[in-house]
Amino acid sequence: MDTLSSREEEPVGRQHAQRVDLAVSTVIFALRPSPETGRMTLWLPLVRRIREPYEGRWALPGGWLAADQDLETSARRTLVRTTGLTPRYLEQLYAFGGLDRSADDPTRVVSIVYWALVHPDEAAQAIDSDNVEWFAADDLSELAFDHRTIVDYAVWRLRTKMEYSRIAHGFLGETFTLAQLRQVHEAVRGCSLDPANFRRQILASDAIEDTGQRLTGTSHRPPRLYRYNTAVQLADHGPLTPSQESKEQA
Amino acid sequence: MDTLSSREEEPVGRQHAQRVDLAVSTVIFALRPSPETGRMTLWLPLVRRIREPYEGRWALPGGWLAADQDLETSARRTLVRTTGLTPRYLEQLYAFGGLDRSADDPTRVVSIVYWALVHPDEAAQAIDSDNVEWFAADDLSELAFDHRTIVDYAVWRLRTKMEYSRIAHGFLGETFTLAQLRQVHEAVRGCSLDPANFRRQILASDAIEDTGQRLTGTSHRPPRLYRYNTAVQLADHGPLTPSQESKEQA
Repeated sequence: MDTLSSREEEPVGRQHAQRVDLAVSTVIFALRPSPETGRMTLWLPLVRRIREPYEGRWALPGGWLAADQDLETSARRTLVRTTGLTPRYLEQLYAFGGLDRSADDPTRVVSIVYWALVHPDEAAQAIDSDNVEWFAADDLSELAFDHRTIVDYAVWRLRTKMEYSRIAHGFLGETFTLAQLRQVHEAVRGCSLDPANFRRQILASDAIEDTGQRLTGTSHRPPRLYRYNTAVQLADHGPLTPSQESKEQA
Repeated sequence: MDTLSSREEEPVGRQHAQRVDLAVSTVIFALRPSPETGRMTLWLPLVRRIREPYEGRWALPGGWLAADQDLETSARRTLVRTTGLTPRYLEQLYAFGGLDRSADDPTRVVSIVYWALVHPDEAAQAIDSDNVEWFAADDLSELAFDHRTIVDYAVWRLRTKMEYSRIAHGFLGETFTLAQLRQVHEAVRGCSLDPANFRRQILASDAIEDTGQRLTGTSHRPPRLYRYNTAVQLADHGPLTPSQESKEQA
């Protein structure tokens, strides 16, 4: 091959870029008790579509990328508008750009999807509306577009990530008991964990520290309260600095 | 807040989507010896820009998203056109969409970045051209656009991922010695590892298996050859199925 191969195919100008509409959507997870078993399980809020395509179907909260917003800012603003939620933990998940994403529509849409974990205090901020509803992640009806695939992917990533990171923190308040932390792991991993083994493993790691305080208003032996080591960022962006605008809103 | 909040801000139609050009670029890593120390280090191929903006500067191989290609297919096609490379390990890294990405240019560009690891056989396919050159990842000059930030992020993700996954495989052939595997870990993690400790840890995990063969053409005690457990996919996409088109090309 000669040097022409790399010349000819270089991006040559804006006029060669295909018309693509860019959407930013977010999968928001919170823990709620299962109505059947009472055990904590993964839930997410969805927004009912009030226009075609897929009018009446449930969809992930999202919107078009706005001209004056970077990707994370766009995700945060759309979230607060559609659901009232302002999650602390928000991270880019994946960009979905398959050719068959909206077969009914001639314009191609690429969605950059964020995910958020919210703890109970944050989840309580959600808008009370006929067009916003919480669903159990393992009991979803058919969603608009490819949003079911996106949710399945997010659940898978969350389960994978839970095993080796501090991501559980996104579901908890500043302090928490070992039982609360174990419930988060059980809900995400979809299994029950032996309390004694869990306690031993989590204390052997340096992930959490004893606050010296105990949960008040409970039994005669109130459980200890722990917190995560705050020296470590919850959403680890590595060398990427969250945009100034996003930080100001956070 | 009432239900209008979620209605008003719903995506209302194509005419409200901002004009954004979508590019797909790839960071390709290979291992090569450092000219100074002779130790294996991380290298990546860059393409010289032959047009403004940033004419003459080195940039990541990439191009505009084509109308008939999904994101991964676009990444693969651009890679082979600009560099000749067809990596086995290719995965989506991150979408970069900051407002200040190309200050000289009025049109906004969002780049969806893939990353690839290539082993020596694959790296040898690279086009020999004045406009394609390999650089050490820790010795880069100023790159076009925000590509330096993208490379730094990719290096960071690679280092993080190396600790808990089989990603090292992307740099190796089907079979390899323990010394070769250790060199990959040393190059990515930027440190030296004690051979005996490394051997013990890697064999204690179920990550690799003994092939029963030994490296030929070497000393009187040729080292054993290992392979990764092929039951596990190299790039783990979870519930996402690589597109049919991508699979056909792979």
